[in-house]
Amino acid sequence: MNPTIELLKSHRSIRKFQDWKIRHELFEELIRAGQSAATSSHVQAYSIIHVTNKKNRKALAELSGGQRYVAECSHFLVFCADMKRPTDAAERAGTEVVRGTTEQLLVASIDTALVAQNVATAAEAEGLGVCYIGGIRNDPAEVSKLLRLPDHVYPVFGMCIGYPDQSPEIKPRLPLASVLKQDYYEDDQDATLVAEYDTTMHSYYQARTAGKKDTTWSEQLKPLFSTKLRPHMRDFLRARGFEMK
Amino acid sequence: MNPTIELLKSHRSIRKFQDWKIRHELFEELIRAGQSAATSSHVQAYSIIHVTNKKNRKALAELSGGQRYVAECSHFLVFCADMKRPTDAAERAGTEVVRGTTEQLLVASIDTALVAQNVATAAEAEGLGVCYIGGIRNDPAEVSKLLRLPDHVYPVFGMCIGYPDQSPEIKPRLPLASVLKQDYYEDDQDATLVAEYDTTMHSYYQARTAGKKDTTWSEQLKPLFSTKLRPHMRDFLRARGFEMK
Repeated sequence: MNPTIELLKSHRSIRKFQDWKIRHELFEELIRAGQSAATSSHVQAYSIIHVTNKKNRKALAELSGGQRYVAECSHFLVFCADMKRPTDAAERAGTEVVRGTTEQLLVASIDTALVAQNVATAAEAEGLGVCYIGGIRNDPAEVSKLLRLPDHVYPVFGMCIGYPDQSPEIKPRLPLASVLKQDYYEDDQDATLVAEYDTTMHSYYQARTAGKKDTTWSEQLKPLFSTKLRPHMRDFLRARGFEMK
Repeated sequence: MNPTIELLKSHRSIRKFQDWKIRHELFEELIRAGQSAATSSHVQAYSIIHVTNKKNRKALAELSGGQRYVAECSHFLVFCADMKRPTDAAERAGTEVVRGTTEQLLVASIDTALVAQNVATAAEAEGLGVCYIGGIRNDPAEVSKLLRLPDHVYPVFGMCIGYPDQSPEIKPRLPLASVLKQDYYEDDQDATLVAEYDTTMHSYYQARTAGKKDTTWSEQLKPLFSTKLRPHMRDFLRARGFEMK
């Protein structure tokens, strides 16, 4: 198999890291690899905060729901959607700019995700491990204050990077037939395919926990959707200049 | 240099393709590599429509603003944010579900982008070329009708894939110092860094067009932000069950 494809397929989140730091040149290479990702109309609407300050690392670990590895991993990045830079640039070039549209929110969020996934792949290609931290959106206002984010910039997710000190198994994904559709969206088979996947995930959890974790994919989704998760996001984004108009 | 990092850094959009199709097994491998990307709380909130129907290809090329390669490339995918599958699964498992929050819109859009970037990397690792098509959001309601997308699913972007029949230069990216910040967001130097980058981009355009294209990054951004680009996005998303509450 193609070694890069093999690498992509071997991804799993790493939450325990060795103490070694990444050498400076390599660290910058990872970010450059990130920058090479495609970007909507070349706007490059993202910024990356490399958090080295220990106090802020601890605060971010707490704010992300008590995820210790945010404080402990050798490098922690906060990936921010950044519409300030391109709109400021256009303004300096002499035009009145429109800010805060839903389209701009999407463009910046997607640009940021593409960059991050390249950083993740580059890191894994170098034997590093990564873990995305969506928990950064648990209290994005406080995170923004801590990192001094201006308006038109918001923290999309964090990422722990470092040399792995664990080797977790690869988590099974949904059946290909469920996510890949030909010509039209069609989900008549989805209940069946998801039931099949629930069995796969049940076996995976059982094996990984010596029979203790007795759940399925569908069961695990229930708490995520039975309440309004991160209900502050709309108002937070509006307050930061993503008015979603 | 690490060959995977080298691969990532060599990305450029391909808009002219050879006629060869990708063999079926490889095509599925690309999608599986996509599926291996990280996903928020393992929700895997995306679906991929592989558009093979020629009439729909032509229609999508028109709807994307007359981008011929959407019809001509050997394979065209529409990456959709899909909150229907996970919320349906949670509902079937026996809970009342909340749908349509801003957080869910972000989760699904980001999940979709991570998958797509893995597909792009896997494709490029196999000597294929790709081009993201954000133009799919020019008329997302019509695209949704064409692909029969249900509520809680929306087309985020398209992607042309195929064997390249051109070899464009790599487009310079923003200076590292502009996008990577230590500990705090700080953009005092940004006007200077962007001015420097404007010079780089001006030289790039001049060289590529034998002196004809006389513009900079900042100049190119002006039309993107001086009007409200894709002003329908908010109402479209709301109509499709992403109420942004």
